[in-house]
Amino acid sequence: MEAKSFIEANKDRFLNELFDLLRIPSVSADPKFAGDVQKTAEFIKDRFAEAGAENIEIVPTNGHPVVYADKIIDESLPTVLVYGHYDVQPADPYELWETEPFEPAVRNNRIYARGASDDKGQAYMHLKAFEAMQTLGQPVNLKFMIEGEEEIGSKHLGEFVKANKERLKADVILISDTGLFSMDCPSICSGLRGLSYLEVEVTGPNRDLHSGQYGGAVANPINVLAEMIASLKDEKGSITVPGFYDNVIEVSKEEREQLNKAPFSLEEYQKDLGIDAVSGEDGYTTIERTGIRPSLDVNGIWGGYIGEGAKTVLPSQAFAKISMRLVPGQKSEEITQLFKKHFESIAPDCVKVKVTPHHGGEASVTNIDSAGFRAASNAFEKVWGKPAIPMREGGSIPIVALFKEELGLNSILMGFGLDEDTIHSPNESYGIDNYLMGIETIIEFHKEFAEMNK
Amino acid sequence: MEAKSFIEANKDRFLNELFDLLRIPSVSADPKFAGDVQKTAEFIKDRFAEAGAENIEIVPTNGHPVVYADKIIDESLPTVLVYGHYDVQPADPYELWETEPFEPAVRNNRIYARGASDDKGQAYMHLKAFEAMQTLGQPVNLKFMIEGEEEIGSKHLGEFVKANKERLKADVILISDTGLFSMDCPSICSGLRGLSYLEVEVTGPNRDLHSGQYGGAVANPINVLAEMIASLKDEKGSITVPGFYDNVIEVSKEEREQLNKAPFSLEEYQKDLGIDAVSGEDGYTTIERTGIRPSLDVNGIWGGYIGEGAKTVLPSQAFAKISMRLVPGQKSEEITQLFKKHFESIAPDCVKVKVTPHHGGEASVTNIDSAGFRAASNAFEKVWGKPAIPMREGGSIPIVALFKEELGLNSILMGFGLDEDTIHSPNESYGIDNYLMGIETIIEFHKEFAEMNK
Repeated sequence: MEAKSFIEANKDRFLNELFDLLRIPSVSADPKFAGDVQKTAEFIKDRFAEAGAENIEIVPTNGHPVVYADKIIDESLPTVLVYGHYDVQPADPYELWETEPFEPAVRNNRIYARGASDDKGQAYMHLKAFEAMQTLGQPVNLKFMIEGEEEIGSKHLGEFVKANKERLKADVILISDTGLFSMDCPSICSGLRGLSYLEVEVTGPNRDLHSGQYGGAVANPINVLAEMIASLKDEKGSITVPGFYDNVIEVSKEEREQLNKAPFSLEEYQKDLGIDAVSGEDGYTTIERTGIRPSLDVNGIWGGYIGEGAKTVLPSQAFAKISMRLVPGQKSEEITQLFKKHFESIAPDCVKVKVTPHHGGEASVTNIDSAGFRAASNAFEKVWGKPAIPMREGGSIPIVALFKEELGLNSILMGFGLDEDTIHSPNESYGIDNYLMGIETIIEFHKEFAEMNK
Repeated sequence: MEAKSFIEANKDRFLNELFDLLRIPSVSADPKFAGDVQKTAEFIKDRFAEAGAENIEIVPTNGHPVVYADKIIDESLPTVLVYGHYDVQPADPYELWETEPFEPAVRNNRIYARGASDDKGQAYMHLKAFEAMQTLGQPVNLKFMIEGEEEIGSKHLGEFVKANKERLKADVILISDTGLFSMDCPSICSGLRGLSYLEVEVTGPNRDLHSGQYGGAVANPINVLAEMIASLKDEKGSITVPGFYDNVIEVSKEEREQLNKAPFSLEEYQKDLGIDAVSGEDGYTTIERTGIRPSLDVNGIWGGYIGEGAKTVLPSQAFAKISMRLVPGQKSEEITQLFKKHFESIAPDCVKVKVTPHHGGEASVTNIDSAGFRAASNAFEKVWGKPAIPMREGGSIPIVALFKEELGLNSILMGFGLDEDTIHSPNESYGIDNYLMGIETIIEFHKEFAEMNK
């Protein structure tokens, strides 16, 4: 039996199971959802059991658990370790969702729900591919590690990996948590940016003050925070933290030309985002700015009176969540320290500043000549009718560097998302075709990978 | 009978009545308290009735109502129009209150509650002074106008005043909504700053984006807002809005020397606020920075993810509430337009900016040789044992300029608050001595004012 027809025959069930998974609000960042995160792990465990996996276990960590499962069919065959995560980003702002974030809705052949694409939908494809292979034949040994803390920096995955090196032994790691350039131009992520995420707190007076009584004489922490943030980039769009670019590995002229060959339309890009102009570091294209250059964004800011109406307050404190995307060569921990040192050093003596590192991760690049990358490319050719092009993505999957370091394994980032999925945003969605073709492509990948290791 | 002994005899009731008034959360800025604002107006009306006032009326406006009352004892006597407001600032952040903001608590001879000082406590002194004078003798004709929208810019008081010029005819206006330099150094406010309050909205992409996928290529509205706010002041602490200072009436060297004679200790000021350094416009002392110079403060800022944990979002929008304190010469409406024009002009083309004026008011100065000012100074000398010094305050009471313009009347700002009242902040309080001595001082003021007009 062909993979395609098996998937077609089970399509409705494959979708309904995903809907049930999406209904559990497994927001790892917010303690009030801790119970749901646990429930989600159990849901994954049960589906693995039904699909015929072995050694299924919900492995506790000091945070949210990791679900492990495997099926070793023949020690002589290659082993593929699949990674995914079952936790999701917070759904705020809720009011911008057209339908409930945790009640999946289907519109124009897309599934709308938080986590539909990132990463419940993409991780669940691997579970269904595994189930299908129990009928169609499983060409390689399979191991699965589905974690629950990816959206909060995989805080405890490192400990898990270090403690389970034997159990995680494999030839390659397969991850679906990235995107395609487009449906017509399938791509495989050949590089990811690292991350350094911090929270800053600026404190002025010991209490909120009346802006009339004190305004003009006492430093306003919001104004000061704004000035400090503004100073983090120069007029060329470069980040001013001393030493920030020191270890950046410059990408060759050739590779930059390669990257810019992707069928990218600035006009469509701006139209899609509703902006009149892009903005970024001088001397780089949009594809390069997100793919091969580091960035700095304020992810959240708050201070003073933010309720309805007006309040003439000079607040005691102002806060911001700031993150930097890093590229190969930059070490997350080192950049975090450079930022902390710099931010503290530029604080005027009329305020006190506190910088709290949240989490980080290293950038990574994949060898596009490796067996895994070629197997993925061939799988796309079979299912999508054309080979996948290599693409540098701006996002971060810190654990890719961790796997390389701890397990010595390369990760193949074979993701099926699209920009229109708007992951991390209200109305996140995932194409039903992406989901079903993704399952098929995964099955083909394992066949291809087995072939190459014959 | 002496005012002092009458007040002493009625002390407990005078306090309990104020506590009842403070229990009603009359937050004018927040629609959900609209019913309480109305209740407060009725409370004031009933107390006036009990005290023997006449022509008592809750006058509706297009916003919150104005409570009017009077007692004309002899057309040949001078008439004092008393102004106050019964609405209060929002109590947020609630968690910083040691005791409930709307359940008054007495600690070390101070009343802790939102509005204890600003302005319920100070306005109610006039009600109790009026009651006392019905026994002690009322030396002047009295009119009262207690409004419910001062904390939101007295939005509809202008219409009320224009429509009631006859009813509001008087010789002077008396207002207690300001502070004393200290208990040992009573002062009368001789000048107030004006206000221009706006809300700004910066919009980048049409939806929240993943900061990894887009960070570095798409302008982040929070970063842009921070840059725009930072650019509003130069390195000298001067405001950069073109034309901002054009009409500022410079204060004479003599008056500046006068102002700086006040027994002000920078060390104590910083200690009280818990700051290591003050900050403001170069070339001016702290007293001058709040008294005679304009200022610009961000009263609130918000955007992106402000919940617990980390969210790697590049938000669609960022917001800020920004207010400017103005000095004589600067017209609120004109400054508002200058700011709007400037803020829109400095917006980079990668974002859209919207500026919404909230409310404003004009600055004012009082002639310290006027009968009213001298009457107030003498009243202080009688009750506090020393005359009051003139002081420029940083706050705004926009209606003072309105009264001058519409009614042709000067306002005497005889307030009894202290910096430690921390009005507009959590744990606002008002000294019981200030409350009781204030009542006595008000009674003496009316005697003095009657004398001067004999």
